[in-house]
Amino acid sequence: MACALRNTQATGLRHRDNLLVNGLLTDLYELTMAAGYFETGRSAESATFELSIRRLPRNRDYVLLAGLEQALDYLLNLRFTAAEIDYLRALPQFALVSGAFFEQLRDFRFTGDVMAAPEGTVLFAGEPVMTVRAPLMEAQIPETYLLSTLTFQTLIATKAARMVHQAAGRGIVEFGTRRAHTPQAGVLGARAAYIGGCIGTSNAEAGFRFGIPAVGTSAHSWVMSYANEQEAFRKLQQVLGAHTVQLVDTYDSIEGLKQVAALGPPLWGIRLDSGDLIALSKQARTILDDAGLQSAKIMASGDLDELTIAELIAAGAPIDAFGVGTELATSGDAPSMGTIYKLVEVEGRYTAKHSENKASLPGPKQLFRFSDRDVVGLAKEPTPPGATAILQPVILKGALVAPPPALETIRRNAAESLRTVGPRPVEHSLALKELMART
Amino acid sequence: MACALRNTQATGLRHRDNLLVNGLLTDLYELTMAAGYFETGRSAESATFELSIRRLPRNRDYVLLAGLEQALDYLLNLRFTAAEIDYLRALPQFALVSGAFFEQLRDFRFTGDVMAAPEGTVLFAGEPVMTVRAPLMEAQIPETYLLSTLTFQTLIATKAARMVHQAAGRGIVEFGTRRAHTPQAGVLGARAAYIGGCIGTSNAEAGFRFGIPAVGTSAHSWVMSYANEQEAFRKLQQVLGAHTVQLVDTYDSIEGLKQVAALGPPLWGIRLDSGDLIALSKQARTILDDAGLQSAKIMASGDLDELTIAELIAAGAPIDAFGVGTELATSGDAPSMGTIYKLVEVEGRYTAKHSENKASLPGPKQLFRFSDRDVVGLAKEPTPPGATAILQPVILKGALVAPPPALETIRRNAAESLRTVGPRPVEHSLALKELMART
Repeated sequence: MACALRNTQATGLRHRDNLLVNGLLTDLYELTMAAGYFETGRSAESATFELSIRRLPRNRDYVLLAGLEQALDYLLNLRFTAAEIDYLRALPQFALVSGAFFEQLRDFRFTGDVMAAPEGTVLFAGEPVMTVRAPLMEAQIPETYLLSTLTFQTLIATKAARMVHQAAGRGIVEFGTRRAHTPQAGVLGARAAYIGGCIGTSNAEAGFRFGIPAVGTSAHSWVMSYANEQEAFRKLQQVLGAHTVQLVDTYDSIEGLKQVAALGPPLWGIRLDSGDLIALSKQARTILDDAGLQSAKIMASGDLDELTIAELIAAGAPIDAFGVGTELATSGDAPSMGTIYKLVEVEGRYTAKHSENKASLPGPKQLFRFSDRDVVGLAKEPTPPGATAILQPVILKGALVAPPPALETIRRNAAESLRTVGPRPVEHSLALKELMART
Repeated sequence: MACALRNTQATGLRHRDNLLVNGLLTDLYELTMAAGYFETGRSAESATFELSIRRLPRNRDYVLLAGLEQALDYLLNLRFTAAEIDYLRALPQFALVSGAFFEQLRDFRFTGDVMAAPEGTVLFAGEPVMTVRAPLMEAQIPETYLLSTLTFQTLIATKAARMVHQAAGRGIVEFGTRRAHTPQAGVLGARAAYIGGCIGTSNAEAGFRFGIPAVGTSAHSWVMSYANEQEAFRKLQQVLGAHTVQLVDTYDSIEGLKQVAALGPPLWGIRLDSGDLIALSKQARTILDDAGLQSAKIMASGDLDELTIAELIAAGAPIDAFGVGTELATSGDAPSMGTIYKLVEVEGRYTAKHSENKASLPGPKQLFRFSDRDVVGLAKEPTPPGATAILQPVILKGALVAPPPALETIRRNAAESLRTVGPRPVEHSLALKELMART
């Protein structure tokens, strides 16, 4: 790919300028609690927090993990500027807090250990995703950012995987930037969708930043900007050559198709964006074939999701690729999921929460994956024969020990995880059960 | 407010470093079309695009506009770096494009005129939000970013307004950063929620950047980090004083409440985060009152939305403030809406799209608002007696002519618009109807 040279994601650490890493990107209460730990002499106590999946999103029976690279980028670069510290110092909530706390913030570095499941791993409800072991204050502050970044990309990667599955081998291109929740969500959503199996994105920044194949067609405005539709098609061919994708539905899809057919090559294909996509794609195939354009592709778009894609495939619609926007970029039917970040251990004491319907389990944990079941056990347990320990060290003493894999590797691992990790029971190990009974 | 001095949003133009303004934050096809306009000698033709609301989000009968400040920030700062241009030049889609186009990108500035509805305006389906009149290439490129930024903040402001309405005077605090779709969505969502009537946010960056009251309570981890719950409560008072909000449901809400009551002041209040919030809030009020803590507030949180808030209010739950996260930060029941950006005029020729169920209307338009109805007319029509023209000039010849109002002003305007602009018919003016018949 022409853009591969600019693919800097292998380190994951060069994006600080653009990816909004700063100390205030968190809930204020993380910082008031940090002040509290400090003021009461506890900020250096050793604590372990665990990020886990309390509940799956609605309509989902698994999730595909994504967003770890951005989470690690955050932990490695988290700092507080003088202006940010001045802001906090002036807040009424910090009126009783000593100057020493703000000195501590000025020198803040994350110095802890992080274990995490790799991006592209299929996970289920009740499973741990990441553990953060660090001085209490350092482990508390990242809660909000880690939840946001891992949850969002996981939602999008999962939605993409569902669509790719239903597309049964036809390509899915992520077109959703305009519907994403901010420009940053457009870029990171494109990354997650690629991990989930999409073949490309419309987002130019995601192409530049992550080396994802950036693709595009043309908009209705191109056609409308010409008084004559065929002139618009002809001029597009002149500029894009074999990359030309003609959008035929501005006025009348069949009429547009006939004009495309009359023009002949060069042509990658056509895009249908409205109307009865089953009938239109069949008519399009016939019109293109009759004009000797057998190699021209048919792309469909327009409020598609995995259900409509399945219907189109089942009806035999001769569609070669789908452009999916809104439902993918927002995970429209499930725009949130119940991930939590809970204290599981402090100074060797195991902790758990007993709130109604919102309990958490004590102790730093590990996910042991067997071929047919998953077992959540304690991190200190040896890996049982036949199982794989899913959480692996990624940061030790504040330093990256496992650089994020290349995005293509993550994407391949995701496909493998999706292929091999079916629905399964999630059990607790005997040691975890014993600890739960005691905590 | 302590943070007011750091409120820089009045200019809206100081955030370039952090708000991801760059030329590649758009769909690639905007750039291939730009190349096409340039290569065919049309990039300087005068064009008008219109951003409008094709369909309301599901479950909504109006939307509250937000995000204009960020949209203007983008247009005023949109540039292409040398690295971005090199990336584009190497893409196969640009293989036939001349070097002169990339020279043009290097010097890219937005030089056009923008009319827009003010932030905090209530709008309905079929209404224009913004018109962009500029050389064809300059007006095409911003499509994706403008749609993303205005649509997202509008969704969140609208969701907030619905919750604030149901809360019937009790305060709503935005707690959703951890569920927002990226950290940037957390910050900008907090801004939109404040415009929609929330009284504060948990997001520290939104407090710093926009001067929104940043508030917080404490998390379960604070309580769990202590072996003894009462000790946790006591230590929090020591640090936060009168700003102390005790989270009582870590183990057992009633038991937690009794411990808070036994401690006495200083105390802002308590937070309930699980269980039967109606019953628990009533018990909490009694326990606090019996302990002489009549001024202690009760805050409720935990997967709330406008429906559950309405139920709590209707049931007489003595809740003083609601902390709302997931459903607000994602606009959970309606995470997307059908906004469009369509060419309406080029070189004096009016344009429209006739696609099935996706038609667009020709000509630069204006929204004339009467007390009981809205009329979409042509921009060149005089404002009818008794009506207000909603779209106002904000950028002329590439320069800001109407600096964004202070956030507090936008929030007040929003409250006024929500109070006075009820459901209404949206009509077309005679001149627009005549143009539609001809186009």
